[in-house]
Order: sequence, then C-alpha cells, then structure tokens
Amino acid sequence: MKLIIMLAVAGGIILNQDGLDAAEAKLSEATQACIECHQVIHPGIVADWQRSRHAQVAPQTAMAVTGLGLKVSSPNVPEALRETAVGCAECHTLRPTEHPDTYEHNGYEIHTVVTPGDCRICHVQEAEQYSRNIMAHAYKNLAENKVYNDLENTILGGLERKNGRIAIQPANAATKAEACYYCHGTQLKVTGKETRTTELAGELEFPKIEGWPNQGVGRVNLDGTLGSCAACHTRHQFSIEMARKPYTCKECHVGPDVPVAKVYEASKHGNIFSTHNKDWEFKAVPWTIGKDFTAPTCAACHVSLVVNTEGDVVARRSHQMSDRLPWRLFGLIYAHPQPIEPDTTVIRNKDGQPLPTDLDGGFASKYLIDQPEMDKRRQTLQAVCLSCHGTSWVSGQWARFENTIRETNAKTLSATRILKEAWAAGLAQGPARKASPFDEAVERRWADTWLIYANTIRFSSAMGCGGDYGVFADGRYELNKAIMDLHDWLELRKQLPPSKKP
Amino acid sequence: MKLIIMLAVAGGIILNQDGLDAAEAKLSEATQACIECHQVIHPGIVADWQRSRHAQVAPQTAMAVTGLGLKVSSPNVPEALRETAVGCAECHTLRPTEHPDTYEHNGYEIHTVVTPGDCRICHVQEAEQYSRNIMAHAYKNLAENKVYNDLENTILGGLERKNGRIAIQPANAATKAEACYYCHGTQLKVTGKETRTTELAGELEFPKIEGWPNQGVGRVNLDGTLGSCAACHTRHQFSIEMARKPYTCKECHVGPDVPVAKVYEASKHGNIFSTHNKDWEFKAVPWTIGKDFTAPTCAACHVSLVVNTEGDVVARRSHQMSDRLPWRLFGLIYAHPQPIEPDTTVIRNKDGQPLPTDLDGGFASKYLIDQPEMDKRRQTLQAVCLSCHGTSWVSGQWARFENTIRETNAKTLSATRILKEAWAAGLAQGPARKASPFDEAVERRWADTWLIYANTIRFSSAMGCGGDYGVFADGRYELNKAIMDLHDWLELRKQLPPSKKP
Amino acid sequence: MKLIIMLAVAGGIILNQDGLDAAEAKLSEATQACIECHQVIHPGIVADWQRSRHAQVAPQTAMAVTGLGLKVSSPNVPEALRETAVGCAECHTLRPTEHPDTYEHNGYEIHTVVTPGDCRICHVQEAEQYSRNIMAHAYKNLAENKVYNDLENTILGGLERKNGRIAIQPANAATKAEACYYCHGTQLKVTGKETRTTELAGELEFPKIEGWPNQGVGRVNLDGTLGSCAACHTRHQFSIEMARKPYTCKECHVGPDVPVAKVYEASKHGNIFSTHNKDWEFKAVPWTIGKDFTAPTCAACHVSLVVNTEGDVVARRSHQMSDRLPWRLFGLIYAHPQPIEPDTTVIRNKDGQPLPTDLDGGFASKYLIDQPEMDKRRQTLQAVCLSCHGTSWVSGQWARFENTIRETNAKTLSATRILKEAWAAGLAQGPARKASPFDEAVERRWADTWLIYANTIRFSSAMGCGGDYGVFADGRYELNKAIMDLHDWLELRKQLPPSKKP
Repeated sequence: MKLIIMLAVAGGIILNQDGLDAAEAKLSEATQACIECHQVIHPGIVADWQRSRHAQVAPQTAMAVTGLGLKVSSPNVPEALRETAVGCAECHTLRPTEHPDTYEHNGYEIHTVVTPGDCRICHVQEAEQYSRNIMAHAYKNLAENKVYNDLENTILGGLERKNGRIAIQPANAATKAEACYYCHGTQLKVTGKETRTTELAGELEFPKIEGWPNQGVGRVNLDGTLGSCAACHTRHQFSIEMARKPYTCKECHVGPDVPVAKVYEASKHGNIFSTHNKDWEFKAVPWTIGKDFTAPTCAACHVSLVVNTEGDVVARRSHQMSDRLPWRLFGLIYAHPQPIEPDTTVIRNKDGQPLPTDLDGGFASKYLIDQPEMDKRRQTLQAVCLSCHGTSWVSGQWARFENTIRETNAKTLSATRILKEAWAAGLAQGPARKASPFDEAVERRWADTWLIYANTIRFSSAMGCGGDYGVFADGRYELNKAIMDLHDWLELRKQLPPSKKP
Repeated sequence: MKLIIMLAVAGGIILNQDGLDAAEAKLSEATQACIECHQVIHPGIVADWQRSRHAQVAPQTAMAVTGLGLKVSSPNVPEALRETAVGCAECHTLRPTEHPDTYEHNGYEIHTVVTPGDCRICHVQEAEQYSRNIMAHAYKNLAENKVYNDLENTILGGLERKNGRIAIQPANAATKAEACYYCHGTQLKVTGKETRTTELAGELEFPKIEGWPNQGVGRVNLDGTLGSCAACHTRHQFSIEMARKPYTCKECHVGPDVPVAKVYEASKHGNIFSTHNKDWEFKAVPWTIGKDFTAPTCAACHVSLVVNTEGDVVARRSHQMSDRLPWRLFGLIYAHPQPIEPDTTVIRNKDGQPLPTDLDGGFASKYLIDQPEMDKRRQTLQAVCLSCHGTSWVSGQWARFENTIRETNAKTLSATRILKEAWAAGLAQGPARKASPFDEAVERRWADTWLIYANTIRFSSAMGCGGDYGVFADGRYELNKAIMDLHDWLELRKQLPPSKKP
Repeated sequence: MKLIIMLAVAGGIILNQDGLDAAEAKLSEATQACIECHQVIHPGIVADWQRSRHAQVAPQTAMAVTGLGLKVSSPNVPEALRETAVGCAECHTLRPTEHPDTYEHNGYEIHTVVTPGDCRICHVQEAEQYSRNIMAHAYKNLAENKVYNDLENTILGGLERKNGRIAIQPANAATKAEACYYCHGTQLKVTGKETRTTELAGELEFPKIEGWPNQGVGRVNLDGTLGSCAACHTRHQFSIEMARKPYTCKECHVGPDVPVAKVYEASKHGNIFSTHNKDWEFKAVPWTIGKDFTAPTCAACHVSLVVNTEGDVVARRSHQMSDRLPWRLFGLIYAHPQPIEPDTTVIRNKDGQPLPTDLDGGFASKYLIDQPEMDKRRQTLQAVCLSCHGTSWVSGQWARFENTIRETNAKTLSATRILKEAWAAGLAQGPARKASPFDEAVERRWADTWLIYANTIRFSSAMGCGGDYGVFADGRYELNKAIMDLHDWLELRKQLPPSKKP
C-alpha cells in the first residue's frame, strides 16, 4: 500500500493524510478568494492546510463513512458546507454574529479566532466531551482560585527587597500570557479596531484583541466557548498524526511540575516509540493495537479510539481525558481522586479553602469522584494495558502505583509538618498570620516537595517507572533532600538568639 | 533492495526484520494453541512478536549462517526447537522443571518469567558474557552492600522530624521496586497461587510472583539466573534495531547520576545520529562502519560486533559491556579502574568498607583491574574511534578525558574534606559517630558533588564533551557552586555561639 | 520523485545528497591516493564523505547553477579545483604555506586542520559573513575579557578550603578545552613533531598540535583564521540537512544557560518539526516555506535563504547570525541590544568594565546597535514569522517578548540589589574590596538568576513560549525562588552577633 501511495505521488496527485481519496476536494468560491492573496503573503499557512485532510475530503464524503472510522460526528452538518473542502472561509466565516471579532474583509465577514464553537459544527461529540474536560476550564480554574492566584503571584510577580522585607509587584498581562496562561489559555477581549496598510489590498481595518495570540487549552474565547482545538490539533494541518504523537502533549507537560514528556521518553513505552514509530500508522481511525502501533503514546492511553486486531473496541475515543483517570496525580498539595466537576473553583476542603485536599492530606471527598467511579475509570484505562500485558503484570504495576501515591502523599505531609512548625514558631509567616504560604525561601523549598518532586515520582510510576525520574531526576533523592533541607533550615533558626528572630 | 522489500509488502507477504527470508517460519502446534486465544486477548504482544525475527526464521535456518552474520551462537540447539519459529511456547515452556513459576495452563506447562537461562539455549555466548557483566549482578551489588543500603535508605525511606531529629522509616518493597530496583532488577519469589476467571477459558490458576513485573538488568530470576534480556531486547519484538539505538540505554541512563542519554543527544555523535539515523541500517550483522552507520550509538562503542567496509572486525560483540572500558566513571565516591569481578560486594577499601575507593580518593587496587588490563580495554575501545578519527585526535581526546577524571576526583576530595571538617567539629554526625554519612542536608549537598556533578562532567568528557554538560548543565558550574555551598554552610555554623551547636 | 530515487538505489547508483546528479564526480589523483589507504584505516570518514555533495558534484557543475540555488559563492574558484570532486586532497593540501601544520605525507603536503580560510576558496560569501559573526570571535571574547575570565576561573578552577577561606587553583588547558572552549573554540598551536609507526606506511612524522582536537565556533586556527565550519557542517558529509536541523545548534545551546534546544523541543514549532520533519525536504536551496517545511528550525529563522512558494526571497542567507537579531538575550548580566562589533572585548560600560551593561542595568549604548538598526533586524526576522502568521499575531508576540526582556532585567536588578547590600555590609566580599563577584556561595546563587533563569525565560519567550521553560523549568518559579533565597541568606546573616561576621 505504501508503494501505491508513492506511485500516486510520482504521478503528481497530491496525497491526503490517509490516502483515502487522492483527489483534492472542490474549494468554495470564498476560500478561493482567500487563497488567492494569502498563498502569496502567508505561504506557510496555505501550504500547511493543503496537506490537511480538511483540504482533501469534503464533509459529504467524510460523513458517508460508517462504523468506527467516522470522524465527522455531527449528523447534521449544514448543507452549504457539505460539498466543498473545509477551507479558510468555511471556518473563519462561520457563525459570524456570535464572534465579536467579526470584521468586514474584502467582502467577507471574517473572524480571527476560530473556536470549539466553530469546530463543533462538524465535530459535535468531540466538542461536547471537551467542554467537560478539566482542561477546557483551565483559565478559570487558575484565575478564579484565590490560593492558586497567590502562588501565581509569588511566581510571576516582581520581587523587591525593601526595609528587610520582600514586596511583590503583581505581574502584568503580557507576563501572565507568556507564563501560566500560555498553557492554561488567556481570556480574549476585543478592545477596538486598528487600520493597517497591507501589501495587496491597501488600507484595511482589523479588530484589536487583548490576550491574542494564544492557543491554550482553556482559552476563554470571544464567543464564550472554552479552549482551543489547535492546542493539540495544530493549525492548519490539523493532523491526527501530530495529536497522537507525544510531542504535542510535551508542549505543556514537559515538566518539572508535570514531567510526562521526560518520563515517557525514558520509559519502556517511549523507547519502543522512539525506535519504531517511523514504521507505525498514525492516521488510521480506529487505531489498531499491534497493527498500527506496538506501544502506547499519550493519546493511546488517554484519548484515542483504539481497537484490537479483530476490530473490537478496546477504548472509546474521549476528549474528556479524565474519563480514563481515577487519580489526579498533580499534587494540590496531595494527589487525590479526580474532581467530579471540571470547574474546580467550587471545591472546598475542610478548612474552607478552594483545594481538593487540606494541609494535613485529607481529601475534600464531597467534590471528588468516589471509589466505584475510580474503579470504573481504572478499568477503562487498564483495558488498554491488558491488550499487551497479562493480568498479573497490570495488577502488580497498579498496586505499586497506588503505593507510590500513598508514599509520596506521606512525604508531602512530613515536609508540611516541618513548615507548620516553622510557622508556629514564627520563623516564617504562614496562613495563620494572613501571610502567603508561598512567598518565603523556606516555603518555596516546601513547594518543591509536592509541586516538583512528589509529582515527578508519581508520573514516573504511572508510566511504568520512566528512567531516573523515580530516583535521581527530581525524584526520591531530591524529595528527601528537600525534607532534610527544611529540617536543617528550621534547626539552624532555632539555635539563633531568640531576640534576633524575624 | 528497499524497493524489493516494499513490493513484498504490497504483495501481502509479512516482512521480517532484515528481509532475509520473506516467508514466515512454521509454527509449532503449541504456539498455535497459544496464539489462538492470545491474539484476541493480547493482540499487542502477538502482533509485536509477529514482527520479530523469532517469528520469521526458524533456528535451523539461523544456524546455517556462517561467518560473522551468525546470531544463534549455540551449536547444539535441541532438535525439537530447530524447525519451527521461536514462538510463545518455545520460550514459555522451556526447562519447565527449573522454573518454580511453572503452572499448568490449558494442557501446557507454562512459566511466566522467561530468563537468560532460557535464552541461552540458542544464544549461549551472549548469555555467558552477560553473566560476567557487572549489570547481571546489579541486584546483589546494591542490595548486599551496607554502604549502598544506607544511601538507598536515606533516598527511598520515609522521613519524619521528631524531637528535633529526622527519623527514617525504611521503604517498602513496592517503593523499592519502583525506584532503584526498576533498573537494578528485583528479586523474584513465588509466594503462592491465585485463581482468576478468564474471558476465554473460565477459571484458571496462576502463580503469584513477588517482585513482578520487572525487567531490570540484574533481576534475580526464579530459576536462579540473573538479569532480563528484555531490559535491552524489548519483548516481544526483540529487535536488534532497538538495542542498537540509544533510546534503550536511556531507560536507565538518562541521568543525572549517569546522564549518558542527555550527553549523547547533545554530542557531535548524537547530532549525527539524530539527523541521519533514518538512513542507517540497524539490523545488519555484522554492523559495518560507514556503510550501515556514520556515527556511533551506545551499542557501537560498547557492545556490537562492528566491522570496517572490507569486512575486517573492528570490535567483537560483547555482552560483558565493561570489556571495552578501562575506567568506571561512576563515582563511588571517586572514579576508578573497573572492578575485576562483576560481584562488587567482595571489594574492601583500606578502611574495610565495601567500596572501590576510600574517602580520601585512594583506590582499592587489589579489587580493580591493573594498568595492562586498562590499556588493553582502552585499545579495544579506541579501535572503534580510530575507524573515523586519526591517532592524534583520539589520543588528544583521551588525554583530556583522563585529565578530567583526575580533575573531578580532586574536586570530590575538596568537597569531602569540608564535610570531614564538619564531622570533626560535630556540626554534622558522620561515620566516626556511627551515623549515616547520607542523612543530613549538608551530607546530601556533598553527595551532589560526586553522584551528580562529577559523574556528569566525566560522562560528558567520555563522549567528546556533550554540550553544556561539562559546564552549566550539572557540570563544573554546579560542582564548584556545591563546594562553595558546603564552605558557606560550615562557616555559618562556626559563627554560631558554641553552646547552641547541635 | 522519491520512487525514482529508490529505483536508482536499487539499480546500484550511489545517491548524492539532493538527487541532482546521480553520477559521482571524478576524483583527483591525489584524492585517490588518500582514499586508497584511508578507506581501510578510516572507513568511517571515507564512507561519510562519499555521501557528501562534495564527493558527487565538481565545483564546475556547482558553479554553473544560476539564481538562488547557487551554493558555490566564489566566482573565481581556481581552475585546478574545478573539475574534480572536492576530496581529501582538495581541502587538506590547500594553501599549504599558510598552514603551520603542513607536513610531508607520502609525497603530499598535508595539513591536519582545515579552516574557514580553506573553505572560503569556494564559499567566499559565507566565510566573509561568518568572520563578522560574533561566534567567530568566541575564543577572544571569552579569553581576553577580564570579567569573564574571573567567572570562568571560579567555574573551572580547583577549589580548596584553607584556613576558613576558599582558594582557587586555575584550571589547566585540558580542562578548559573540555569545558568552555569546547564550544568557544581553542587556540591551536604547533608545538613540535612526533613520529608514529603506522600500519600501512611504517614510520611517519606528524605535527603535534596543542588545543587539538576542537571544532568550536571560534577556534583560533593555525593559519590565523577564526572558527570551524565543521562546528555546524559536520565533517565529512558536510550535510546541509544536518546544519538545518536543530540537533546541530543543540550541541552548544542545550542549556541551561542558553536553553534553546530544550525550549524549541517543547514549543509549537518544535512539536511540528518532531512530528513532520520526516516528510520535509532539508536539502533544497533555496528553502521554500510551506513546500519544503511547515515550521521553522533554528536555521530557518536565523541563517537560511528562505523563499515563499512563488520563489520570492523572504530572508537572505546569512552566516552572520545576528543579522536577524535586534536583542542579545544572553544576560551579561542584563539582556541588551546586540553589540556593534563582533569583537566584544572593546566594550566598556559606565564603570569601565568590559561588559555591555552595568550592574544597575544600564546599557553600554556606545557599543551596542541603535534603535533604527534594531528595527531593521526585527523586520528581517519577522519576515519569516509573517510567512505563516498574521500581523496581529506577530506584533502581539513581539510586544510580549519585549515585555519579558524588561521584566527579567528588572528581576535581575532586584537580585543584584540584594547582593550589593550584602557586599556593602561586608557579608560577602565584592568588587569594592577587589574580590571576585563570583566566588562565594551567595554570589553564585545570584549568578543563577541572570545566567540560568532570566536567560531561560527570555529564550522561552523568543520561541513563542516553549512549554514549562517560562514557569517551572528554570523559569519564573526558580527566578523568584532564587531572589527569596538571597533575601533569606542576607536576613539570617544580619541576625548573627556582629562580632562573628566573616
């Protein structure tokens, strides 16, 4: 089949993403008009899109697919969109009245920011699922949580030593957009219009958009929708191959807070991927274990529709990634069961804080999934594992993984107790004195224990122990060292003459 | 030839690893029985194996190869195994009485854990060599060395601050298996049986195995053999391509303690590999320098049978990796000549400790290879270098490398002297007071100097100076900073009022 | 076209780098003589070279190319070199009297170290541009700057605690060559001759060269030229594919001081590269955006001749990489406009130091490019961005980037003020007391803020926010933590009884 494709290329026919249909789909008049200018001024975008399935297969053809291969999950794509390629105009002129950034552009009503609200016209199921994904809420979950705001402020803000104290100057919007909100997503806002002189069409007017550019997973769009499909399905090729390869997840999860890319690269699965992925098929839908790939990528475990060699479904596609996740490994400040709602600002721990755990490691259980739901999600995930591993392998691995959750939570508690002793002794200024728990050196060393090291150890465990990440590379070696540092810091200050304590 | 292979694929014939024989080998009746069920319940394993050379070439055919291309080093493979593919049953029913995990399974005597004792039936030379490899002894070398146990305990154990002291709670088996012993290998033990209800065959009984799963290089197997060939020759494709690519070594050597993967990726050799390996031939045996590859991978320097373009042997295959290594760069606590015996628990330094060097940098020479042996190993290794580099290049590089060993050992000594001063002053509790040298913050900072930074600098040097690893990335910048920190720590404590010292 | 190439391979014709001319170029008699021996003793070099364009295309043919595809920029390549392949002898016997390492070797005048002075015979424009590149001056810029020497000394030198003080023993030449000067380049010097017994030709005499081997970008060659083209165009394949892939830049820029490789790998551009580069064309000259590649590599933005799909030049080739760079992000100790001259030893800040900025963040503006030049360079760079991104995207990104420069410079100033307070109080020994600002623990923690963290944040910003590098991975989290640490260090020492201060 590879040969056939190559002959096709040799013959001059453009190759689409999965070889399904070697002819390009017809372009709408509007898209032709876009391309006429933009292929000169933005050749990269146009050429990239030309390699996409959107350029090759009209919705009509895609909707005719039956069974698991169906990609266009909307049964009722508007007639007007069905027979032409999904081109520039199809997306950038969709739902014009719902986009506050719509502007007149050479006779067309264009909007700059294409959103999940547009994509859902064809991909309704994926848009629905994603709206319930915690990622879609990543902006609000960070921006509207007072504890996280405080941590964010101490990370991004300007620090100035004045009169023997550190004063914090909050970060501006540009800094925020380059830091936390690059991944979490910015809040977009039309702030006016501007006129620019263009090369091909003279003076033109464009909307000014605050928070732009951004492709964060939880971007708050101008039409009120949440997220950017381009976070994973990179514009304008929207390649499923890219979404399925681990490099996409790496953009936001390289670590050290959530070091999944590093751990994966050093894991057995990552080793197999790195060696053999050149021989794998990344575009097939459904994705067949053993035939299309021989080791999981991030997508295989967490997102993709995967089947066995007989075509039976092993795991259903889900854009609500936590569907296959019982535990939330990211420590806040302890690992805990996944939250019930994707909007986590509603959570309250026993101390009334908007956190899924309290300082002593208790879970805010009312807001977290219960054991039956955890079991269900574990089974959904393990179905993927069991396609290559025996039951004793999988249950043995899982038992260790849950042991590691308990172990690292216990170590976070050890670290926290030392800090609480420092707060109690007035050697650091903690919550009891209405001070931030994040703005002193010793507090930041404490933050390392759960934000960097405990997380790293857990993610290493979750991926079958990726290399040194369980030990030396931000692992247990560092975690215990940090606890020893906290102890050393405290002991030293306790030795100082009392009157001199800060 | 590539074209021919592709035509074969187009024609529907399954492709074996090196195109030698396009037909699948005949399957034994037993393996057919395995596959019947397992291709449904474990499609990943079966499909992976189908891509392997084991599935394509029967031992008979493989044994007929003459000269350097011979892969099956046993001249006397049992007749019963010669004419069928090396399938599920061939390995998992071999030597049943020697495997305590053998159990009855649908009429066959199956064992779960395939060991080097099984692999040696066909690959006797490799199994022999590997048994003398220090890696094969990685379990015992760690688990039965009191000094390393102490370090392990302070890294993995739970820490609790109580009454102004840190108490350590030893790690449980699950934590150990996820940390040090993931790479070193676990000790396996049958602890009983369990009955599980299976989808295809109803109730079945399986052995329960403590320490499972694990594929560490020094796994202590149920049949008494050491190691897991699957550590590098990943199940069930057992691809030589994978073993020869650096991703395999990265699983355990990503660093920062032994950062070979990171250093290699940033080295000139790694750059060439990353750019051009797509055009290389990773399956050829022997492996021809220049023709098959144009820069070394880990395997080319340390393991593989490599020849020049005239077919002359440049280096013989060795699964005793230290065959080409005069120095052991990993600091314990100083770099030193390779140990004579792979079982390093026999070593004693001048202070009676089971360490290849003493605290002042002296070598436990009686247990380490001597200069003639070092020279011989250096020459074996340099033969590979000299296939691409002139003599002055290679000797110039080597002189710098040995300078770096002296330099970093000297810097470790500087750090150690500061710590000894702290111990002598009672500011930290060291060996003289029967205390662990690893369980205080200042001791851990000291450990950074030899375990992380000096190692990194030496591995960077060994690979021709990979990128920043000799300087900023855990290199000399960090090493000297750590020494300054030790000094700063000590000076500060010396300033405190004497009565207040801990 | 791919198919055609493969048929050619199947037919036994050697494939040259870009398929332009399937026949090998004729070899000179001298090169044939070289190859006769060296293909046996150095098969790797010879085979590598045989894959090069130098082996396939004689200068005559290459010079006949018109337009943007021209690679041999010298109009007057000597007649004697035009009709044969660019083989061993062509480079290693060129300009013999100008090379102090020329020696008689089997009837030929050979020099070991090929230099930009040799390469310029055919590639004059590239050699000219490179000579004005700051990289060409990397040796002197480091070795002849007193402030940098001091920093280098505290990083590479041996540290010894004596009488309560740290004494520094300067590093030897071998250590320097393995560390800073591996990338910066060594200074080469012929120190004599040596006789070696060779396998094929008995006793032969060779020059001894101090500083060899080295391929640093600023190597000071024996013929007086600066740099090594092989730093990026790796011997002996000299593949443009390699120079254009990011792995080459990674050799020196993996970080953490200049973490461009890490940031790129985690960026959107890097994600696209990692997924799709297997389908890109890396050898085409000029390099067409959209057709040959769909996301930039380092070379696309900073070096290569890139055109749009209509063949219009988007950016001209430049081996003076700063041509497209208004800002120098590397903090010395603050980010600042690019220096006017590539020899930066001429720079003086307001305090008379050879630094582009002063301790309070002021620019040594007289030695740095002005705003009009910065604008010009920004536009040259942005032309590449604008081939895929709209104006509002690019200007939005740029505004954030310049905000980040201001933000990180301000944070470096905060850190510096704390250190100055420590110096003023005599708690550390600074420049005012003629002491190094780099040789105490607290000073090194300060160095982290600008050398590691501020740099990382700026490079992350420059590449559109690569992953965690703006936040947790040596980013703002660490920068603010370091400032808190400096404050904590100072506060503690201020609490000590005055008489006890060092």
